Formats: sequence, C-alpha cells, structure tokens
Amino acid sequence: MAEKDSLDEFLDVAVDVAKKAGEVIRKAFYQTKHVEHKGSVDLVTETDKSCEDLIFNHLKDCFPSHKFIGEETTAANGVTQLTDEPTWIVDPLDGTTNFVHGFPFVCVSIGLTIRKVPTVGVVYNPIMDELFTAINGKGAHLNGNPIKVSSQSELVTSLLATEAGTKRDKATLDATTNRINSLLYKVRSIRMGGSCALGLCGIACGRIDLFYECGFGGPWDVAAGAVIVKEAGGLIFDPSGNDFDITAQRIAASNPLVKDAFVEALQQSA
Amino acid sequence: MAEKDSLDEFLDVAVDVAKKAGEVIRKAFYQTKHVEHKGSVDLVTETDKSCEDLIFNHLKDCFPSHKFIGEETTAANGVTQLTDEPTWIVDPLDGTTNFVHGFPFVCVSIGLTIRKVPTVGVVYNPIMDELFTAINGKGAHLNGNPIKVSSQSELVTSLLATEAGTKRDKATLDATTNRINSLLYKVRSIRMGGSCALGLCGIACGRIDLFYECGFGGPWDVAAGAVIVKEAGGLIFDPSGNDFDITAQRIAASNPLVKDAFVEALQQSA
Repeated sequence: MAEKDSLDEFLDVAVDVAKKAGEVIRKAFYQTKHVEHKGSVDLVTETDKSCEDLIFNHLKDCFPSHKFIGEETTAANGVTQLTDEPTWIVDPLDGTTNFVHGFPFVCVSIGLTIRKVPTVGVVYNPIMDELFTAINGKGAHLNGNPIKVSSQSELVTSLLATEAGTKRDKATLDATTNRINSLLYKVRSIRMGGSCALGLCGIACGRIDLFYECGFGGPWDVAAGAVIVKEAGGLIFDPSGNDFDITAQRIAASNPLVKDAFVEALQQSA
Repeated sequence: MAEKDSLDEFLDVAVDVAKKAGEVIRKAFYQTKHVEHKGSVDLVTETDKSCEDLIFNHLKDCFPSHKFIGEETTAANGVTQLTDEPTWIVDPLDGTTNFVHGFPFVCVSIGLTIRKVPTVGVVYNPIMDELFTAINGKGAHLNGNPIKVSSQSELVTSLLATEAGTKRDKATLDATTNRINSLLYKVRSIRMGGSCALGLCGIACGRIDLFYECGFGGPWDVAAGAVIVKEAGGLIFDPSGNDFDITAQRIAASNPLVKDAFVEALQQSA
C-alpha cells in the first residue's frame, strides 16, 4: 500500500488517533479524583507519555517518511530542528495542570507543518467532546460544523484570554500582571483557561476575541491551533505585531477587524 | 393542596425550574453566534428577564409565603432586605459576558436562605449540562453524584480561581492585579472563568482549590454556591478571614486544609 499522501488523509489519520488518545485522557481524568495528589502528578506523566507513544506510533506507521516533534521527545533528545519536510508536531496532553485538578479544559493537539507552514490541525477536548479541525485552504470545523472567528471590531467589547504561564521570577510575574492591568482598561474582560491550544480554538470559534501567550512550552502548543485559527478567518501573529514564528514561544491571535487595535494595546502594555 | 414545606421539596422545585430556565438559556446561547453584537446584548437582557420571570413565577406559585430577591427585581425596586423568612435568591443567568460571547461557563443560580442561612442551592450550567445541588446537612451533588472539595493542603500545589470584575477605575484595577501578582508567587496557577457561581461549584467538586471574588453583583451570585461549597466539605469566608456576609459582595472559598494559608496569602496581597 502506498503511503497516504493527501491532506484529507493526513487529517483523517490525525482525528482518528486524537480520539484514541482522548479516550485514554478521559479515563485518566476521572481517575485523578480518586488518587492522592502525588499520585495524580504521576498519572499525568504516565498519561502524557502513553498518549505520545500512541500518537507517534500510529502516525509513524501511516507516514514513515514524515518527521516528528513532541514535548516528551524534545525533553529527551533536545530541540528538533523544524525542516521543510512534513512534520507532525504533537502535544499529547495540553493543560496538564487542569488534568491534575480535574478542570475540564484539557486536549490533544496534533499539527502538521509542510514547508514549515501549519497545514493540518486537530485539537480534541475529550472531556467536553469538542473536536476542532482544519486543513490549510479548506476551512475550520468544530465537531464537523464550520466555525468562524468573532465579528468584534472594538477592544472595549472584546473578551481577552491569556495565561499566567509557569515562571515565577519577579521580572516575569510583574510583566505578566502589568500587561493584564494595562489591557483590562481597554477590553471587556479576561479569561484564563489553562490550555494554549484551546485558547486558540476559542478564537477560532468566536468564544473569545483576543488571545496572547508568551513563554509557553513549545511549537506543540500552537502548531494545530495556528491553522485552525487561520482557517476560521482569524490571524496569528507575534504579540509585537511581527510575523508569527512557530519556534518563538510567543503568540497572539484575533479576528482581522480588531487586530491592529489589539497589537497597539499589546505594545502599550509591554 | 398545602404549600410544600420540606427541604427536599424545595430542592425538587428549584431543580425543576432551573432546568426549564437552563433550556431557555441553552437555546439563546447558540443564537448569539447568529446575531450581530448589539443584538446579542439585547438577547442577554431578554434571556435574563424571561428566565427570572419563569423562575420567580414558578417559585411564587409553589411557595406563596416565601420572599424573593433577584438581580432584575433589585435593579427595579432597590435593595430588598434579607429577613429570617425563607427567601429565594436567584440569578437567572450568571456569566452574562460569557453568554454574549458564547463562552460555555454560564448558569442559573437558585439559592434559598432560611433565617439568613443558605439552606438549599441549585446551580445549573445548561451548556455543559452540569447540575450542582445541595441541601443544608444533606451533602452536595453534581448530576446526582456526591461531590467533595479537594484535599490540597498546600498553596504551592493549589489552583486558584478569581475574576477581574467589572469596575475599571485605577484604584480597583491596581488592587485586582496587585493581588493576583502577589498570589501567583504562592499558588500553582490561576483560572478566570467568568461566573462566580460556577467558581464556587468548582471549589465544591475539587476542580479548583482556592476562590475569591470582590465586588460581584449581589447575594444572587453566591446564595446557592455557598451551601453547595459547605455541603461538599468546604468553607466560605470573607477574604479578610472574617465570617462570610451574604450581603457584602466579598467571598472566598477553599477546603478546610488550605484555608488558613489562603487567608494569610489574601491578607498579604491586600
């Protein structure tokens, strides 16, 4: 059998394995309530690793010529250089803190870049059973229904989402809360959900209007979400307003109408 | 027919009408995506009012001797004094910003105080189909299953939830973000979901460990959640550490293990 090579086939395989991994996560999610805290930390590590194995093994079987980048692999082997080759970039469990605490925003994130461009994206939240999908040029979907970004054109009526990150040094924390302080004067309100991939999907389906995060883990947090936002009619960019760089651990997203005002507000808050 | 007068009957009636109002909210929630922004603001007002009418009319039919306090009623008639009489305190739609934006944390909140003590509580999120219920002395439930608060005993592994509120004057905003800055050094991470009642329910089912909010709308935001938290084994208190006052628009909640450390951290952050 020839290696599958159409974008539709890539998506089908990614959806299939995201749902399988999602089932592993869903079962473990409900177990976290029944183990002591230390045990729930072990459970997240185990679930993360077994889902990454499950996803990579399946993708490698289907696409032996493709490249692979994942959080666990990178932690073990160091940074893998992103090339022009088709490359699967996977976060088997985004929102690990939520997972440990039983907060329902957790997901599998599977993205495929081709010539470094995010081309196929799958984000699956197995707790809320929400499957976000996109193929470059073919639109974005939530559980099979087309989605699009919001039509908010003004900051003052926009809902902003961001994350507090994991660094706790004074410079980072002050920058984080000073930025939130500055932005709160300009937007309607702020949400923090604890999953970068689901934050991007929130932009894609118009639940939130503005999203930014700096200092997240790596390209696996954003590779899938980037194509889902773009295909929902949204924009992905660096919080500085410069072009998005998938390796930079900095991302912002919005609809096109409010982007310029958002970038200006982000610059004034930096 | 004699007026129903057992706590179980009070709960049954409240659950019944919360589900009816939830159905109204659920239908309107999915319409917000199809109306322009101005229209979605009108839709929230309409939904809020029609759910309050639905809930109060039904409760008044069942319990003609009881008193009633609601957001819309209070806005129209001024503050109603809380007495020792059985009093239904209702927020027909908590999380109105989420409702307008299609963010899935919205709920109906129905609480009953007797001698000013929160005694029956129902919080229903019709989007996620999560029904939180409690009766004083009889435990708390999520969709019929018993729930309890988390067993976190240290701040550093605790997940904190709060809200940014609606006031945008400099003193309030600075206090809000300075407090978040101070707390982020001590806790694992922070979530902002946009519904006070669901924040309290998050404490009750152990999804989050620490919650506080100052400056929310009124007792209707907390009357139901307070009994749900208490019956799940949690504590409700003023962020200062003093006793909770349902009329004070200030609330904090946690499990008993981490309360003292939380109050100390809140005091240091004030």
